[in-house]
Amino acid sequence: MAVYTEVADDQLDAFLAEYDIGEPQSCKGIAEGVENSNYMLATTRGTYFLTLYEKRVDPRDLPFFLGLMDHLAARGIPCPTPLHGRDGRALRTLADRPAAIITFLPGLWPRRILVDHCGPVGTALARLHLAASDFAQKRPNALSVAGWRPLMDASRERAHEVAPGLADELRTDLAALERDWPADLPAGVIHADLFQDNVLFLHDKLSGLIDFYFACNDLLAYDIAVCLNAWCFEPDRSFNVTKARALVGGYQQVRPLSAAERAALPLLARGAAMRFLLTRLYDWLHTPPGAMVKRKDPMECLAWLRFHRSIASADGYGL
Amino acid sequence: MAVYTEVADDQLDAFLAEYDIGEPQSCKGIAEGVENSNYMLATTRGTYFLTLYEKRVDPRDLPFFLGLMDHLAARGIPCPTPLHGRDGRALRTLADRPAAIITFLPGLWPRRILVDHCGPVGTALARLHLAASDFAQKRPNALSVAGWRPLMDASRERAHEVAPGLADELRTDLAALERDWPADLPAGVIHADLFQDNVLFLHDKLSGLIDFYFACNDLLAYDIAVCLNAWCFEPDRSFNVTKARALVGGYQQVRPLSAAERAALPLLARGAAMRFLLTRLYDWLHTPPGAMVKRKDPMECLAWLRFHRSIASADGYGL
Repeated sequence: MAVYTEVADDQLDAFLAEYDIGEPQSCKGIAEGVENSNYMLATTRGTYFLTLYEKRVDPRDLPFFLGLMDHLAARGIPCPTPLHGRDGRALRTLADRPAAIITFLPGLWPRRILVDHCGPVGTALARLHLAASDFAQKRPNALSVAGWRPLMDASRERAHEVAPGLADELRTDLAALERDWPADLPAGVIHADLFQDNVLFLHDKLSGLIDFYFACNDLLAYDIAVCLNAWCFEPDRSFNVTKARALVGGYQQVRPLSAAERAALPLLARGAAMRFLLTRLYDWLHTPPGAMVKRKDPMECLAWLRFHRSIASADGYGL
Repeated sequence: MAVYTEVADDQLDAFLAEYDIGEPQSCKGIAEGVENSNYMLATTRGTYFLTLYEKRVDPRDLPFFLGLMDHLAARGIPCPTPLHGRDGRALRTLADRPAAIITFLPGLWPRRILVDHCGPVGTALARLHLAASDFAQKRPNALSVAGWRPLMDASRERAHEVAPGLADELRTDLAALERDWPADLPAGVIHADLFQDNVLFLHDKLSGLIDFYFACNDLLAYDIAVCLNAWCFEPDRSFNVTKARALVGGYQQVRPLSAAERAALPLLARGAAMRFLLTRLYDWLHTPPGAMVKRKDPMECLAWLRFHRSIASADGYGL
């Protein structure tokens, strides 16, 4: 929720001169996207997204993200694609930040998740996994199991401010996740953050997958595990097995899970809950209340984590 | 800089059913506008602004604001206009807030003010004043001279946190403004907040005046005084008389100032500086650092105030 960087008129004009997209008609800062400054840019030719990458994004990762969007779009995945300037480059500099113009996708993200959303999300995720299978660049997942203990350490002393005994509770989960995390499941490029605000629907049909700035190489089934957390819990934090069936069913229509992947789902889902719990916990403890970045509640993830801890096999998800 | 209220899918659908503007294609929260939640709403018919009025706006004022936009647009002023639903109403309820859809104006507000911007701003302001002269509704200016002492009282004890001795310094100005404030100048509907982010330009031509949510009845020349502060100080807080001449000259092409208005300009400009100083000071002291509402620096207004205090007549502005 942010525009961190204002772009001066002459800076914008000089930037746009590198593209063949007409004259700017309006340029409005968008209150979405926690990490970057996003503008909706209307020109005489169409509507685009202008993104200035702020300090939480490592500029060295940008060729991976932009290249991945190009790669996926070329294979029919409905995702934004970076525009290439006259010099062929998609990534350049604006107001001293790395910046890119990407296509604007129509659609609205569902504020209220219905069962009918979950099947298409699963199917789109599987298509993304297949389409990315021959993407040449690699980006390790810094927020996978090896990254969780350092994150926990950064919040341990103040974790009790969020919930009494939280650090103690997570200690057991973290040890179990580190001990049992699978190493031999199918891996590839994953989205890694396919929450509801990153999936657009138009007339009840999935019209776009957006925000690839956490995409990385990791276990494919871990991406499903993220979605089980993101799409299948109700606002009261109960787990909806009908949504889980729709989601995983939609996925398997395109890419059936192996027995090992299926068996690993409870642990992967527990891990995904841990990952979002830890980053939200860190942000909660390090962001002042009411700050420009809207803080997300780590306790929501704790409810997810506790649920997955209680699940012995994929049967427990109704699968 | 804000979206305070999320609109659920079914709420949006029900709301749009009252209008004849097609199906929603996207709905993006806009990071502009401090007071309300603003969405850029693209439909199959065009692009619109959806505004949910939040608690800092008095709902009783909304018929004035929306009616004024209708009135001005009908008289050729390039301003947004509210869409009227099938029932004729422009104002209805969405997500428990008063809400309206208004037209979307193309253009970009100038991030760097040039002399060439100032003439058209003056001209547009004068046209607005004339066009509003037969607008029937009234709204007193709660942020005029009578409102400044209560505002000062609300910040007095902590004013020194912003600048040592600030309350003492302002005491003298406030007494002078209350004593000398003119009562017999031409009055009417004024914009009252025509800062650079409320004026759009397209291809170097003024294309829109926006954000009428401070509009009220007050002295017309006070609106020019606001603009002298908003448009004629350089980033280093020096006063640019060439810009002032362009601004007032542009205004007078449409509505010449009387000798009394001209003579009152230094006092009115000092008052306008006081008004923005006091609201910024209040917000500064009552908003946590880094909050969703970007705090504006009250010290900028103090520089304006000190400058106007030193001006004996309109000659001092190069007029």
